[in-house]
Amino acid sequence: MSEDSVGRGTGELAARARELDAVDPLGKLRELFVLDEPGRGVYLDGNSLGALPRNVPERLQEVVAREWGQLRIRSWGESGWWTAPERIGDRIAPLVGAAPGQVVVGDSTSVNVFKAVVGAVRLAPEGRDEILVDATTFPTDGYIAASAARMTGKRIVPVEPGRVAEAVGPRTAAVLVNHVDYRSGRLHDLPGITAAVHAAGAVVVWDLCHSAGALPVGLDEHGVDLAVGCTYKYLNGGPGSPAYLYVRAEHQERFDSPLPGWTSHADPFGMTPEYAPGAGAVRGRVGTPDILSMLALEAALDVWDEEGVSPGAVRTKSLALTDFFLECVAAYVPEGRVESVTPVPHGERGSQVSLRCGDAERVMGELIGRGVVGDLRRPDVLRFGFTPLYVGFADVEFAARALAEVLG
Amino acid sequence: MSEDSVGRGTGELAARARELDAVDPLGKLRELFVLDEPGRGVYLDGNSLGALPRNVPERLQEVVAREWGQLRIRSWGESGWWTAPERIGDRIAPLVGAAPGQVVVGDSTSVNVFKAVVGAVRLAPEGRDEILVDATTFPTDGYIAASAARMTGKRIVPVEPGRVAEAVGPRTAAVLVNHVDYRSGRLHDLPGITAAVHAAGAVVVWDLCHSAGALPVGLDEHGVDLAVGCTYKYLNGGPGSPAYLYVRAEHQERFDSPLPGWTSHADPFGMTPEYAPGAGAVRGRVGTPDILSMLALEAALDVWDEEGVSPGAVRTKSLALTDFFLECVAAYVPEGRVESVTPVPHGERGSQVSLRCGDAERVMGELIGRGVVGDLRRPDVLRFGFTPLYVGFADVEFAARALAEVLG
Repeated sequence: MSEDSVGRGTGELAARARELDAVDPLGKLRELFVLDEPGRGVYLDGNSLGALPRNVPERLQEVVAREWGQLRIRSWGESGWWTAPERIGDRIAPLVGAAPGQVVVGDSTSVNVFKAVVGAVRLAPEGRDEILVDATTFPTDGYIAASAARMTGKRIVPVEPGRVAEAVGPRTAAVLVNHVDYRSGRLHDLPGITAAVHAAGAVVVWDLCHSAGALPVGLDEHGVDLAVGCTYKYLNGGPGSPAYLYVRAEHQERFDSPLPGWTSHADPFGMTPEYAPGAGAVRGRVGTPDILSMLALEAALDVWDEEGVSPGAVRTKSLALTDFFLECVAAYVPEGRVESVTPVPHGERGSQVSLRCGDAERVMGELIGRGVVGDLRRPDVLRFGFTPLYVGFADVEFAARALAEVLG
Repeated sequence: MSEDSVGRGTGELAARARELDAVDPLGKLRELFVLDEPGRGVYLDGNSLGALPRNVPERLQEVVAREWGQLRIRSWGESGWWTAPERIGDRIAPLVGAAPGQVVVGDSTSVNVFKAVVGAVRLAPEGRDEILVDATTFPTDGYIAASAARMTGKRIVPVEPGRVAEAVGPRTAAVLVNHVDYRSGRLHDLPGITAAVHAAGAVVVWDLCHSAGALPVGLDEHGVDLAVGCTYKYLNGGPGSPAYLYVRAEHQERFDSPLPGWTSHADPFGMTPEYAPGAGAVRGRVGTPDILSMLALEAALDVWDEEGVSPGAVRTKSLALTDFFLECVAAYVPEGRVESVTPVPHGERGSQVSLRCGDAERVMGELIGRGVVGDLRRPDVLRFGFTPLYVGFADVEFAARALAEVLG
């Protein structure tokens, strides 16, 4: 592709991008986030760390100066700190298709995977000895599931998510699957896999890290048993913000956490030596909630209260963004230089595009130097995440053009 | 005691307080914290939630606005986010008497108790089936230890800390004890208990929540195996700030965490399906570190770099404060209205005074109404914590006088 052809392609697709941005019903949300000036940079790593929502600094300052600084210990009650894990859980609930009272915020995703997998094993029928784990999972899920298996006397069976229906059986206690694969961006069939797991009498745990906030999840609708997710990707909660745990209402009474910390107790201030689990989502809590990060997350969720913002709306835009990116890449990048490992069918695609590319590390380094921030999954995958709340079509065109220039 | 006698007592002891404050080498530190105006209120609940250090809001604003807002994902490297758990662990290390490389920050205390107790069991000689747990422990330690026992096939034996030496034996795998009892303020004999546990061939875990930051701990010196502690009490890290885990250097290679999250991996970005633990303190990490809370804590630790500040110096002042409080209470409060459950000998006292009191809930409510903030441990304990970094002798006299007035 000559510079001239880049020039022409730029013109046509850039014009398309402007048109798409002009009619984008979510386009107005961009101003609610701190981003680079248009033309200065494009942030396509929101699937690793979401951008800063503009309302967070002021809210956090208030939490620190007034709630911690002035009210101090009284804020556990007066500022609503104590109930924040459930309150914020209920703000996340509609984003994952859950009725209130089933989601609790706190701890890291890894810690929640441990609670969920051990909890799933304990909910499963007795005598089953296998835990099926997504063989392509983000590593921590596999490491933690292996520890859960070791500590509950089960064995791990790695399985491709597409083959869960074949692999699940009368020996299966629990199944842990990612909704969207972190590397390829493939969206797995949550309704179908959940139904297959249930048909075998087993319990399913979904990891929503790469789907929640970018597409509808439907936990209640599809009968999911347990789920975990992080809040610092598409939910923009900030670096290392607390994760969440979903325990389906009908399982809560039997949910038996391996981390029964005092804040999950039925009477936490009774300080009794015997543990008695609280009722509902609170049972998924462990220690003292991490207030600064949790309340930053709460402010970050305000964007979901804006008119027209819903998982369905972000999904529509997300697919339009990734479609357009693939179109721009096809138009700009010399043939054979990159190969998409993200599925083309909408039903199999999350909110990222992963391109296999020789020399991926150098390429991503140069892209970042040009202000296009994606990330690298070694050895050879360039990963571009599209957060529908703040990425626009002009960003997409800019990024694809920069990629073509780096590869040209 | 008549009002007149209160008046006289106030005069003498108030004058003493002024003299003690005038020569207090740590008195200058008070201005580094956000506190009530003198005479307006006294904060004696720093053993529950430490006061806000004045440098924290600005640092946190920088972390949010620049590191998250501008640098975003690059901050994991450029802003030192990735290594924060070990870096901040090394700032806590001297406060607990540990050489660098043995303390890692992250997760709640409860989660760290789980890592430590399971880790201790796995370090212990095989064939031992008992975990001894401080029978007077803060409840979460007991709940979590019970889960650790259940998941490692051991049984819990509750034991008074003063009787560990008698109870520990050839069946003991691990022992979990609090350095200072959260309710009574009793300081337990860390060197003696540690030696007794080791003499029986078992592994000891110390919970430092109510000691670190108020008195010297001496983990390395006394041969402690594992320890955990929170950072939101005497370390002033903020509400729910992350806890820490100490694993003695000689145990690190064999430390086998039940929560082997990806950030503890030898090559976390290799994203390999097999877990291989990293070397050193990093092995105690789990998931993505909670950056906002962690960096607020880091700023809060700056006070320990001030001239003359050390665990020994705070201990000297702490004992002077609690001595003076007991003296003021004896002088002001009508005899028989309260009874101290905190030991009188310095070697058995932490940095709080707990007074048994009929009608404790009403009394604490009225005290708080007068600006004297302590807390209540149901059913009948008034708990007053003395953070030597920012509590002065005039505060102590004021609090005792208010207590006498409420009880008078």
